[in-house]
Order: sequence, then C-alpha cells, then structure tokens
Amino acid sequence: MPETFNILKIEHIGVAVNDLQKASMLLKLLGLNASKTKNIDSENVKVVKYSTSNNNHKIELLEATSLSSPISTFIKKRGEGVHHIALEVDNIENAMKYLTEKNIKLVYEHIRLGADNKLINFIHPDSCPGILIELCQQKKRD
Amino acid sequence: MPETFNILKIEHIGVAVNDLQKASMLLKLLGLNASKTKNIDSENVKVVKYSTSNNNHKIELLEATSLSSPISTFIKKRGEGVHHIALEVDNIENAMKYLTEKNIKLVYEHIRLGADNKLINFIHPDSCPGILIELCQQKKRD
Repeated sequence: MPETFNILKIEHIGVAVNDLQKASMLLKLLGLNASKTKNIDSENVKVVKYSTSNNNHKIELLEATSLSSPISTFIKKRGEGVHHIALEVDNIENAMKYLTEKNIKLVYEHIRLGADNKLINFIHPDSCPGILIELCQQKKRD
Repeated sequence: MPETFNILKIEHIGVAVNDLQKASMLLKLLGLNASKTKNIDSENVKVVKYSTSNNNHKIELLEATSLSSPISTFIKKRGEGVHHIALEVDNIENAMKYLTEKNIKLVYEHIRLGADNKLINFIHPDSCPGILIELCQQKKRD
C-alpha cells in the first residue's frame, strides 16, 4: 500500500509586512485575537498570529529582523503581501516523498522546525506560480 | 446597544493567476477538491475553488477574462500571487458601519453580490498594507 497523507486544513496565511505594529491595527480593530510576538531566529523574522474566535483560522504577520531574512527579500521584490499559505498535513514525510516522486521541487531537502513546534517544509514556487505553499505538521512531544 | 458583527472564519484566500489550469495542477495533486469553474462577469474573472476535505478551508484561483479586470491590473503590478483574504462575517452592513466610523476606507460604497450568492465588500488596502481584505456574508435566500 502506498504511503499517504491528508491535508487537514489551511493552518495559516503568512503575510510579509514592513511593520508588525502598523499591520496589526486593522486586524485588532476587526476583533481578531493576537498571539504573543515571537522571534524565529532560524528565519530571521518576528511573528504575530491573529486568530478568529474559534481559533481555527489564522493570519500570521511576518516582519524581517535582518536584511538576510527571506521576508526582506520578498518585500524588496514584490512589496508587502501574502508570503505563503500553510497547509497542515497529517504526515509531512509522506507528503514530501509523494511530491518528490511527482517531480514537485521542495525548498528544503530535510524537514525544518518552524514556529509553534511544527515540522515544516515549502513547495518550491516554480510548481505553482504565485503561491508559496508551506507544509506543516504538529510535532509530537518527545 | 451598538450594532455589532462577528468574524466567523477565513472563508477563502483569492489567488490571482495567469492560467487557471496550470495553477490547478499542484492543488489537484495535493488532493484538494475542485469546484466547477465559474465566470463572474461583474469582475471580469473566472474562478475555481479548491477545498480541504472538511470543506472548511478554500483557495480560490482567479484568472482575468479581460484586460480591465482587477486581476489583470494586480498581476501587471505585482505578478501572480494572493490577491485577497476573505473574512466571513455574520453582518456585513454592521461591519461596514463600524469600519467607516473608525475611518477605515472601504472599496465599494454599497454592498455587491459576489460568487456563491455572497454579499461582499473590500477594505481598502491603504488601511492594511499588503493585505486586501474582503468581507463577505452568505445572502439569505429570497
């Protein structure tokens, strides 16, 4: 039987912004709930997530903390805007194997650890012009 | 008592693409379910929606059907990518009143009818650099 995976949901939408505080204003006004702001040193970004009241849908604002951050590169090229769409899967390893077999290029060769203790990788945007898709899976506690 | 509204969920993410079929390939490979392709004449676009299996999360691909389409303008300026994030509210009229009182500019003065029998408006991107937010509400059957 082939190894499989399922997409559980759109976990979040990641938006590249110049200024977390400025971009937060409207989302706060709309009554979305803010998480704590976190630094993700491996990606040179700081992040705050805004959730709907059922906590099922999230917008993640991303501000670069250094010029070498992928967010900084993105904004230079395209301006502020949606940087990625994160799909939560139940088995990221199987998803990566499946996509590689179908000749879909991934950004990282190996799974990385993202925010909120999630295992992540990205599908290379060559495979889907205009949408950078993140695959993520909640890491089991050790 | 003030008139209020609630955000129910992120109804969909709208992605501007040059070619619906090409952009659909990866989403189909990932096992997302495609809707029928529809033309929305008022916006000069054709649209196909991809849903997760619980039907709770959707990616909407938008291809311009004329050069005067807002999707055509968007791609010319920024390239293919996420065009808007649609928040479903339980009372779009109250949401519009509330935002106007807070000096948040809306794109349309009056509610429009969008795809899937939804009442829609957009928050002007000046209020939230990089994110065009659509407000939508399911229209009650007459």
